[in-house]
Amino acid sequence: MNLEEKIHKAGNVAHMLRNAPQGPYVYPMRAEYTNWRDEQRAWKETAVLFDQSNHMTDIYFKGPDALRLMSDLGVNGFKNFGRNKAKQFIACNYDGYFVGDAILFAFEDDEFSLVGRPVAPNWAAFHAETGDYRVTVTRDERSIANDGRRLTFRFQLNGPATHKIVERAAGAPLPRIKFFAMGEFKIAGVPIRALNHTMVGVPGDEFTGLELVGPQEHSETVREALLAAGEEFGLRQGGARAYPATAIESGWLPAPVPAIYTGETMKPFRQWLSAEGFEANKSIGGSFVSDNIEDYYVTPWDLGYGRVIRFDHDFIGREALELMADQPHRRKVWLRWNDRDTAELITDSLFGSGPHTKYLEMPVSNYATGSYDKVLVDGRLVGISANAGYTVNVGGWSSLAMVDDSEAIDGREVTIVIGEENGGSAKPTVERHVQRHIRATLRTRPLV
Amino acid sequence: MNLEEKIHKAGNVAHMLRNAPQGPYVYPMRAEYTNWRDEQRAWKETAVLFDQSNHMTDIYFKGPDALRLMSDLGVNGFKNFGRNKAKQFIACNYDGYFVGDAILFAFEDDEFSLVGRPVAPNWAAFHAETGDYRVTVTRDERSIANDGRRLTFRFQLNGPATHKIVERAAGAPLPRIKFFAMGEFKIAGVPIRALNHTMVGVPGDEFTGLELVGPQEHSETVREALLAAGEEFGLRQGGARAYPATAIESGWLPAPVPAIYTGETMKPFRQWLSAEGFEANKSIGGSFVSDNIEDYYVTPWDLGYGRVIRFDHDFIGREALELMADQPHRRKVWLRWNDRDTAELITDSLFGSGPHTKYLEMPVSNYATGSYDKVLVDGRLVGISANAGYTVNVGGWSSLAMVDDSEAIDGREVTIVIGEENGGSAKPTVERHVQRHIRATLRTRPLV
Repeated sequence: MNLEEKIHKAGNVAHMLRNAPQGPYVYPMRAEYTNWRDEQRAWKETAVLFDQSNHMTDIYFKGPDALRLMSDLGVNGFKNFGRNKAKQFIACNYDGYFVGDAILFAFEDDEFSLVGRPVAPNWAAFHAETGDYRVTVTRDERSIANDGRRLTFRFQLNGPATHKIVERAAGAPLPRIKFFAMGEFKIAGVPIRALNHTMVGVPGDEFTGLELVGPQEHSETVREALLAAGEEFGLRQGGARAYPATAIESGWLPAPVPAIYTGETMKPFRQWLSAEGFEANKSIGGSFVSDNIEDYYVTPWDLGYGRVIRFDHDFIGREALELMADQPHRRKVWLRWNDRDTAELITDSLFGSGPHTKYLEMPVSNYATGSYDKVLVDGRLVGISANAGYTVNVGGWSSLAMVDDSEAIDGREVTIVIGEENGGSAKPTVERHVQRHIRATLRTRPLV
Repeated sequence: MNLEEKIHKAGNVAHMLRNAPQGPYVYPMRAEYTNWRDEQRAWKETAVLFDQSNHMTDIYFKGPDALRLMSDLGVNGFKNFGRNKAKQFIACNYDGYFVGDAILFAFEDDEFSLVGRPVAPNWAAFHAETGDYRVTVTRDERSIANDGRRLTFRFQLNGPATHKIVERAAGAPLPRIKFFAMGEFKIAGVPIRALNHTMVGVPGDEFTGLELVGPQEHSETVREALLAAGEEFGLRQGGARAYPATAIESGWLPAPVPAIYTGETMKPFRQWLSAEGFEANKSIGGSFVSDNIEDYYVTPWDLGYGRVIRFDHDFIGREALELMADQPHRRKVWLRWNDRDTAELITDSLFGSGPHTKYLEMPVSNYATGSYDKVLVDGRLVGISANAGYTVNVGGWSSLAMVDDSEAIDGREVTIVIGEENGGSAKPTVERHVQRHIRATLRTRPLV
């Protein structure tokens, strides 16, 4: 069965995804190496090492038309793009709505990989296979879809000590690497490509984050060299519980509903996708409910990607995006949850025999693959809170949100509706509960 | 290196274990099948299926002296013990202090297995190998010590629907099985031994709990049959997060410090044990601190096992236990934590930038292999709180405790000191924190 058939069978795709069995995105990492509080603190104060070798879909595109393929799909600019460069690749559908994002690595001028949640890599693979491109596609599936075998290791170091640690592990000064470019060096004799890319904190030319990629068979050699080098700098390994909280601090919205479930133009992609795949099973959670799946679609502007759109080339969705460009958008913001309201919510989720509020998983409290909680001002819906959790660096709960640009005022008090309607959906992660309104303060810049 | 050498090297064994790297006991199960709240509720309202195939050490003892071996080590009575019987096997050291417990299964009159945390099975294996017994020892290590290979599956069903579900899966009325005896029947053609044994609720002749054991290669066949049979009865699979909370409700103290670290008589056992093994690395956590490891030792009475001691046979520790028998003991009790104090503790563990109280993991909040928190009455130490967590069935936090018999009065208010001294030990699970006193109400019977 393919996705199109599954939707047809289900009847309403919004209902299907709101009750889909898949929970939060799976990070096949050890849950904690020490404890998630200290692991979170490390990326602020020293450095943390995350093993990202397993949780992302990597698809390689090689051939004379590889760059054209990316340029045909990506809203980004591709001038001067080539070897040892990278970008946050953004793809939209024909109507300008967001399909997916991924990190695009240029290993050679004609050899790229897209790395991230499965949607954007799949979208590019679909076009490579069905379009007129001289491109070979090599799929390196995330380990839960591939018995754990991967082609590369991928170690992410984050925190102020990153540069010193990697330099110590390399045993030599590192090359200068611009932000979102790659450098090449060796660690313990193993050739590395290193992406200057930070998952937390404010990015810049200084290496507060480096993503190190190399051949999987040398994974342990490099890990050991990094850990040994990191010892004196307070490096900690970070696990699956701490990991997704990085995105909340840094401001990455990982799981919008991809705009692929409706429309004739997207039907071939739905027919290409399996009913067993990620796109057919990713769940939607939260207080925002609509029976029209298109109400869950977002634009690049909503996600903070407006600045990367370049109308200097043809790409899928260009015309629609040009029409949207001057319209009002939503804007990505941070919501700092009110401590007292949050503490009461937690208390009421646990104690007593009465109806409970929704349990907040700690530290990241998403209970679906994608979260859509209502954000209100004076009872009016002004946006969606989409990725929530606690970090010790924030000192409380916060979430990312997409709110109407006119409401995105620093310091504004908003209300978030936590929990699902009518006792909760049929998602297995959802116990019966009642909704609760909590206050939050809106910020247009990262909280940490 | 063996355990004796490791202790010698460390200097103080209490300090060694209080700072040991091993965290809470590892349950190699999926963390949650649905969500831990509903999984906990299932064992009270319908039934839960726990896959216990992986986390326990199973050691088989076969031969003409197998029964004599058990009788020489166990404080229990062994009259009429044989095929298809089982017991909660309790072993003490030569001074009458608790070494370990395990479930003793009699598969034949001369073939037993000891199943549980590693200490008691290891103690019996040590005697089998070094003593004068015609017994063969077959080790079936827990999966984390054995690359996941096991000899048997072990499915535990608990909850009021257990009998109906297993009967439906077997397709025939079940044989009558007395409490802590085994019955034999087939599920999907696979021969099963079923122990009448409940992990939650009050045990009895009715099957509110059955532990089903059979050959590992048929594991999936039996699991599928149970899940299919359980569907109409609301059976849920339970994961690693819900699982250890069963012991808190039912009253099993899983992790006292085994009385093996001191004394010349126990030295051969320490020399037999590896420095890499469970006993050499299990950690002690909590507010109770002593540099004398013997202050952490407990007696069978402290654990609620006084009633199983039988002075009708010779066994290691008998003379010491006879002398202790009429002395004052501690008694196993339940402590229902004050909801308001607990909620405040949780709040103060998370919010703000000041010193935090100890984070309470949910639902089970143990952060070491064994917990020793001080229990006070009017500032006097009256016992140890040893296994703490939340269940939806209790509607709050509770713990098991061993308190002086004279203080074990139903309804008594006590104080528990949560967290470790001086900011916390060096255990990796322990973030820097401050201690907090909370109130709790003592109960001599299960809370649920």
